[in-house]
Amino acid sequence: MLEYLYPLRTYLIVSGSDKPNVMTADWVVPLSFDPPMLGVAIGHKRYTHKLIREFQEFVVSVPTLELLKDVWIAGTISGAKEDKIRKMSLTLINSKKVRVPSIKECQANIECRLVKEVETGDHTFFVGEIVEATPGDAFIHGRPDLNYRFIMHAGFGKRFTTNSGETYEP
Amino acid sequence: MLEYLYPLRTYLIVSGSDKPNVMTADWVVPLSFDPPMLGVAIGHKRYTHKLIREFQEFVVSVPTLELLKDVWIAGTISGAKEDKIRKMSLTLINSKKVRVPSIKECQANIECRLVKEVETGDHTFFVGEIVEATPGDAFIHGRPDLNYRFIMHAGFGKRFTTNSGETYEP
Repeated sequence: MLEYLYPLRTYLIVSGSDKPNVMTADWVVPLSFDPPMLGVAIGHKRYTHKLIREFQEFVVSVPTLELLKDVWIAGTISGAKEDKIRKMSLTLINSKKVRVPSIKECQANIECRLVKEVETGDHTFFVGEIVEATPGDAFIHGRPDLNYRFIMHAGFGKRFTTNSGETYEP
Repeated sequence: MLEYLYPLRTYLIVSGSDKPNVMTADWVVPLSFDPPMLGVAIGHKRYTHKLIREFQEFVVSVPTLELLKDVWIAGTISGAKEDKIRKMSLTLINSKKVRVPSIKECQANIECRLVKEVETGDHTFFVGEIVEATPGDAFIHGRPDLNYRFIMHAGFGKRFTTNSGETYEP
């Protein structure tokens, strides 16, 4: 039944610090303007789940279609079992206000401090306050430039799509 | 900073029963497979906020680009002040398991019972268990048919986009 909410935007969640982890997540949502907050639902068994609890911080990074191979690796290999960062072509760089790193190749890095955890069935919903955000060229005018191809997951399998370049006004 | 999560899918939230209300929401997210759950963040002052609290039920409906004018009306007029249903061309029909109606013209109607409320800054995050979901032709194969043009909000203004028709495999 959750398929009916798809296609959904796909993001990368960075967690941990000395040995950081990157995972793919479609279940990300804005929650508040003031203070700026967002939430992400993470399965109980995910390594990211453990790392967010431990470090109380995480980064939401915004990939585009050029990074699809890395997004797939991040979503299908467990960082607890394999060094998946080495398998990816992403560059981890220092964040500005949290210990968790950001991803250089992404079009935005949104730095969050954990403020609340909510149990929701088989996932935990982590609520973060946004303490810093660094945009790339896709947001040079503040709002998203639709010439960039943001990643959308077209269901639960190996099938993605993107935004069209057109805009529509009601 | 929330702009960096956009473009985001746009949905309609139906609430109330005898005098139902329809509002537009981008801040909708899946939360759990088992039991199936989703969440929606609603501003404290919205009429929908009051109605979800009162009826403890809501419906998430999936519009396509053909309904953009109605989506705009639902997002900009308050149902507490005006009879906005009359201004829209949408048809409210009975839902299967909740008293809150569904929308005939939408490509899916996801019926939810409220199970949790979480305060997140200037919004309340309403967590619903999905008790029924009725798909339209866009989901005839279970997953979304990308020939349908789902609505995406391209930021916080009067500017929308949609998914492209192409699929990509990593």
